[in-house]
Parts: sequence; structure tokens; C-alpha cells
Amino acid sequence: MKKLRKPVYACAPFHTLFLGPGRKEFHPKKPRPGIEHYIFEAGKGCLEQVPNPEALDEGVIGNFMAARFNNQGHLGAFLPAVHPSLRHKPCTRVEGACGSGGLAVATAVKAVLSGQADAVLVMGVEVQNTVKAVYGADILAGAGHFSRERKSGHAFFFPNLFSERAGAAYERYGMEYVRRGMAEWYALAVENARRNPNAQEHHNTNPDLRATGMTDPKRQKFLPHLTTYDCSKVTDGASAFVVASEEGLKKIGIDRKDTATFVSIAHAEGDITQDPEDLCRLDTTEAVAARALEAAGATPGEIGVLELHDCFTITGLLALEAIGFAEPGKGAQFVLDGNTRPDGSTPTNVTGGLVGFGHPTGATGVRQCADLVQQLTGKAGDCQVAISDSRPYGMFINMGGNDKTLVSAILTRAD
Amino acid sequence: MKKLRKPVYACAPFHTLFLGPGRKEFHPKKPRPGIEHYIFEAGKGCLEQVPNPEALDEGVIGNFMAARFNNQGHLGAFLPAVHPSLRHKPCTRVEGACGSGGLAVATAVKAVLSGQADAVLVMGVEVQNTVKAVYGADILAGAGHFSRERKSGHAFFFPNLFSERAGAAYERYGMEYVRRGMAEWYALAVENARRNPNAQEHHNTNPDLRATGMTDPKRQKFLPHLTTYDCSKVTDGASAFVVASEEGLKKIGIDRKDTATFVSIAHAEGDITQDPEDLCRLDTTEAVAARALEAAGATPGEIGVLELHDCFTITGLLALEAIGFAEPGKGAQFVLDGNTRPDGSTPTNVTGGLVGFGHPTGATGVRQCADLVQQLTGKAGDCQVAISDSRPYGMFINMGGNDKTLVSAILTRAD
Repeated sequence: MKKLRKPVYACAPFHTLFLGPGRKEFHPKKPRPGIEHYIFEAGKGCLEQVPNPEALDEGVIGNFMAARFNNQGHLGAFLPAVHPSLRHKPCTRVEGACGSGGLAVATAVKAVLSGQADAVLVMGVEVQNTVKAVYGADILAGAGHFSRERKSGHAFFFPNLFSERAGAAYERYGMEYVRRGMAEWYALAVENARRNPNAQEHHNTNPDLRATGMTDPKRQKFLPHLTTYDCSKVTDGASAFVVASEEGLKKIGIDRKDTATFVSIAHAEGDITQDPEDLCRLDTTEAVAARALEAAGATPGEIGVLELHDCFTITGLLALEAIGFAEPGKGAQFVLDGNTRPDGSTPTNVTGGLVGFGHPTGATGVRQCADLVQQLTGKAGDCQVAISDSRPYGMFINMGGNDKTLVSAILTRAD
Repeated sequence: MKKLRKPVYACAPFHTLFLGPGRKEFHPKKPRPGIEHYIFEAGKGCLEQVPNPEALDEGVIGNFMAARFNNQGHLGAFLPAVHPSLRHKPCTRVEGACGSGGLAVATAVKAVLSGQADAVLVMGVEVQNTVKAVYGADILAGAGHFSRERKSGHAFFFPNLFSERAGAAYERYGMEYVRRGMAEWYALAVENARRNPNAQEHHNTNPDLRATGMTDPKRQKFLPHLTTYDCSKVTDGASAFVVASEEGLKKIGIDRKDTATFVSIAHAEGDITQDPEDLCRLDTTEAVAARALEAAGATPGEIGVLELHDCFTITGLLALEAIGFAEPGKGAQFVLDGNTRPDGSTPTNVTGGLVGFGHPTGATGVRQCADLVQQLTGKAGDCQVAISDSRPYGMFINMGGNDKTLVSAILTRAD
């Protein structure tokens, strides 16, 4: 990706409650809000922070599988119902499996850079507790190469793909060591979620998270190499924010001090018809991180707040290695050394990540970027971390499929 | 929409066969190519016209419902399998029901305008003969406001929405007159398709199309106000072309004389939660056409070749009125007067349109734009029409849902 040809800002971040098993509000047999509720709540919550929403030029919405979870396609056409100013303006739904939210961010940034829009509403949404988990897993298998992979696959298709990655890492680096890193990842995710009132794991009171995280996969008989604690959640939720040019900020009435600036944005697509060359490497994640850092002229050591796509705990460890925070096999050590803690060198997933905050699949990339905007503008509440001048950047990496759709952006405080 | 901030070109158009009932190759009980076949064939057919495809920067793919017709999401991740140059480049799937292809075109144009890409592969694909028509109709109902409209809706949900529009037009303007216009539209669609070897109606040998087009809806017992002849087809197919900047053309090795130039592009979204105010008006189509014409500084009378989204014959008539070719109610007369014939004042859907060429839903907008590129570069074979200096523009209008996602572009010969 190239440098951005003009400044692009992000502002007015908002998250709905991330609802699913674990939340006190969630009951599997009681009625729950549908997808439209989340779209309207996220849109309203975002635009209430915008003095002149009628100046919006465009909308982009990321969603993965409403076609099957909710029988509803065509989500772009709900955005004019979010705010009448979007009526007869361009509104687009983008999809790249669990990377759909990241695609929404990238598409909005490009719309502003194109000169066709000055202010764009960006949203991500997924409501997936509409079916039982095992049917949901079949639906989510549409993120893989269905015709080739599905028949021979596990009932829990994607969890099993990452179970295989975990198994390969145990084999190469030692099971006890890798699982300790994964357990620490799990524990931090829940601890962070406890400070985040919107998080799915917010109500988790388990007194010994690290012991739970070390549960032997053999005991659960769920997957060969992962336990349910290693997995992100089945979540209903939506996030939204606004992307704008300098002129767009003036038009919508937002002060630059209440924004973060995009320093770079990168998007890399892997070939879905190919298996990973090395199960212990995320090569598309490597590519997208390298491009985002290069275009920003930044190093991993300058990242002050990091959002990683921990669909599974093992994915978080491998992503740290893919960015360059740790040598291959040393991701677990990087976590065990405390670097990813909110007070560590590289605060990571400080609102809980996919394991703790939840993973409304098509919303996650928007959620990650909205979280960075909250952190960089000092509005992250109990989850706020200190952003120092030597580590001024926020970075997110959002993944779709098995390391296939990758979007990463680097943002910083607007000067 | 604003004027384009720099020149954007389109080149290397390609269509697969549009397969479905009516084609000799089609047999409902015999195996047929799957969605991947169409993606790879369209990609290969496009890129074989490009001397240096390794210079591609990006890919965009429009698709509506592969999630349900083919159990496959995440289509962007197939593009690196189309050509290895796209590996680790940005590839995005966009969706706006039957307007998905138009969104792909608009997204590609904005990617080039953004400065992030100089050459973008644009594709649209749909493979929908995987289920029986009535189940397919339920899937396609995801283009409407499912939670509100579906329960009370007709088994053939979308055909019935446009049947209601036709009924309203019969009521207001006279049934015999409107149906004569629709029958003429049907006849021209099939006659044009007979000159197009890729069209679904290419093998249609009906000697009296106008009489068939006048079939009384009551006789068929399919819909109250439409017959099957008024409907576009259930089609498997894909189209592709390349969008590039001036620099992009040099890099991929395409001469400007083999391209068309985008003069304007517009995208307007209607509110899916609202019913049409007037069944005889396409108000989002009016908005998108007005914006495309205004940004181009063009009038309807300067359009030398027109591509309209005739998902139903009545839609074609109403679209002519929405653009301004005819007063309300006079669309049928405009057609009966011969204006839309290949040798008329405004040659329309000269390769057959959705009724004659076929309607692989998420592909149609890309197909329309690719057809304009063929016409404007004089490479439309037996379907070629004369493009005069006084009518130098090609225009397409692509629609998703019931007048909800509208994309229109105006192109001309590159000078």
C-alpha cells in the first residue's frame, strides 16, 4: 500500500453491548434483539457524537453472514434508515469473512482519499446467536474453501483449523510452554474484559483464570488441541465510527483533538484455494503488518496500543510473531513476560479482544479500529492505557478466514 | 457525486457464457460448472487481454448470495487464485443485492481515485441454478426487508413486488398500452440476445415474440400482473474487466485507444425499511441518473448506448421515465416508437439485457459496464451499434432490491 495522499481522521467511536453466552443478559431460549436493533443502536450511538450528521457523504457496513444467520442481505440499504442524511447517498456492504469489518474501514478510507466523500459512516455488525453453535460453525465454514475443505472437515470447522495450528506449535515448541502462553492470553483477555462493561466476558468471576486456561484439550473432547477457553465467543454486536477528511471534520463539526489520524492502512489477501505452507506461520498477517508498518515508517517498538485478531488464543501468539514482536516460537514468552498487559511494553487487546470482548464476526475490524480511536483520544474509560510519545501509534490487525483476508491500520493522535 | 479528480479508464472486458434454462447446454438434472469455474474463466478471459497482469494492484468482486446458493462466502480470497499477482494485494467482495456488480465498479473506480491503486480487476459473479426456482426466490428475498416484508410476501417475492408495480401502471396508464410496451421490450431483448452468442436467450427461436410477450398473466397463474416472459432469467455467469489510471494503463500495457473513460459515476441508496411512495416511480433510480448525468454534464439525448436493469420488463419502462427519456407513463410509447432498438435514437440493452442476456444477480452491474466498454471500443461483434459524435456516451444503471441500491456510470471513448 502507498502512503495516504491526504490526512484521514477517525472519530465518534461507539460499541453496542456484545451479547452472547457469558453475559447475564443472555438466555439461549429467550428472545433477543435482531440485527436491525444493532445496526440502529450503533448508528445512533455514533452519530449522537457528531454535531452535523447531515453532512455525511457515504456509509460502509461490514458484515459476514447475515444472509444465513438472519436471512438478510443488502445491509447497505439499512444505513439510510440509520440517518436520513444517507438517503440517496452511496452505502456499501463489504464482506471478507471475519475480516469484513477491516474491509469496511479500508473501503471508507479509500472513499475519502478518492475525493468522492469527505465524511463516511463506518459500521460492522453480526448477529449470530440465531442458530445453535454447531450449525453456526457450518455457516462460518463459508469463510474457508467450502468445496475443497468442508467435506473432510470437523463439525467445528474453523476451530479445528486453528486447533491444527496449535497442535503444530505444540509439536515444534513444546506443548506445556505454548499452552502456558495461551492460558496467559486467555487470562488477560478476561481480566481486560472485566474492565469493559460492553464485553461478553465482563461478568466472568472465575478466580483462577490461568488454571482454567491450562485445561487439557483431551478432557473437553471438543477439539484435539484447543479448549473452549481458547476460542473467541459467539457474539451479537455492532460497532461504528466516522472516517473524515480535514474538510469533512469541519462539515460534521468535529474538532481534530477528538480524532485519531490514519498513518497507514494495508490490506493483503491470501489465496483461499491454498493450504498454509507452515501451520506455525501467519504469512498473510506477516505481509499486511510489514506493509502497514512500512507505509507508516514505524517499528513494532513504536506501537503503544495493539489490537490483534485472537479468534483463538494461539492466533494471538502467532500474530505477535508475524508482526515481529517475537521470533518464531517466542510469542508465548513475549506474553508470559508481561509485554501485552495493559501496563506492559505493548498493551494488547486491552478491552478484551475477541476472546474477552467477543467476536461478532463481521463487526470485529470496525470494533478494533473504534477501540484504537477511544484509546488515542483518551476516552477509553476503565480500559484506558497510557500512550507515551515514544510509542505513539495504535495498530490493529483484523483477519478473515484462515489467514486469508488481512487488514491492518496504524493510527495516532491527531496533532 | 463529485467530478472524478483524475482520468479513470476501463478495458479488457470479458463475459462467460450466461447459463440457465433456455440455453441448449443447460439441463436441470445434469451437473454444471460451480462458482469457482466462473470466477476463473472470467478472470482468465479478462487478463488474457492484458499484457502485464502482474502490474494489477487490487481486485474487487461483486456477488449477492454465494453464501446461500454455494455455501461460500469470502469470495475476495479467490481472486489471488485467479492471478498470482493478486496474492497479498487488496481484494474485496462487495454486496448490494442485484446491485452488487455496480458496487464493484464504483468501489474499483474509488480505489483508483484514492491513489492506493493504479489497476484494479473488477469482477461480478453469481451461480444460482443450484436450487429450485422457488427456493431461489426465497434466498433472493434477502434483497428485501426480510423481517418486515417476507412473511406476508408471495412465494416468488421479488417478482411479486414488481408485479405490483406493473399492476399500478396498468391501472394508471391502461393495461393494453403498458403491456404492449412490455411485450416490445421482451421481443427486443430476445432479438438482441440472438445476436449475442453468450446470452441465455441466444437459442430462442420463437417466431412471434410480440404475441408471446402479450400473454395474459391470468393464463399463467404465476403472478397477478406479470408473466414469465416479463422476468429476467435465473442465470449462472460472470463478467470482468480492468479499471485503471493513466499510469495504470502504462503499467499493464494497455493502449488508451482500447479503453473507455469514466466520465462520471454515481451511487444512491434507498431506505430498505420504507415502501415505495409511488409504485409507478423509481425514485432512487431518478436520483442516481440525475447525479450521473449532472456530474458528466450530459443530457439523456447524448446517450448513444444505454444499459438498463430490466429485472422485469416493467422495470425497463419505468427506468426510461426515471432517467428522463419519457414523461411518466410514456416509457412504453418511447419503446413502441423504436427508440430503444439497436438502430433507434437510444440503443438500449443491445446485448439482450437481463431479460435476454440473463441475470446472474451479483454479476449484472459488471456485465453492463463491460458491455459498454465493448461498445465504446468498437469490439461488440454482432451486437455493435454506431456511436455518433452527437451521442458519445454509454450509460448503465444497475439496481439492487426494489429500487434500493442504484449505481450508474457514464463512459465515453478515450480520446
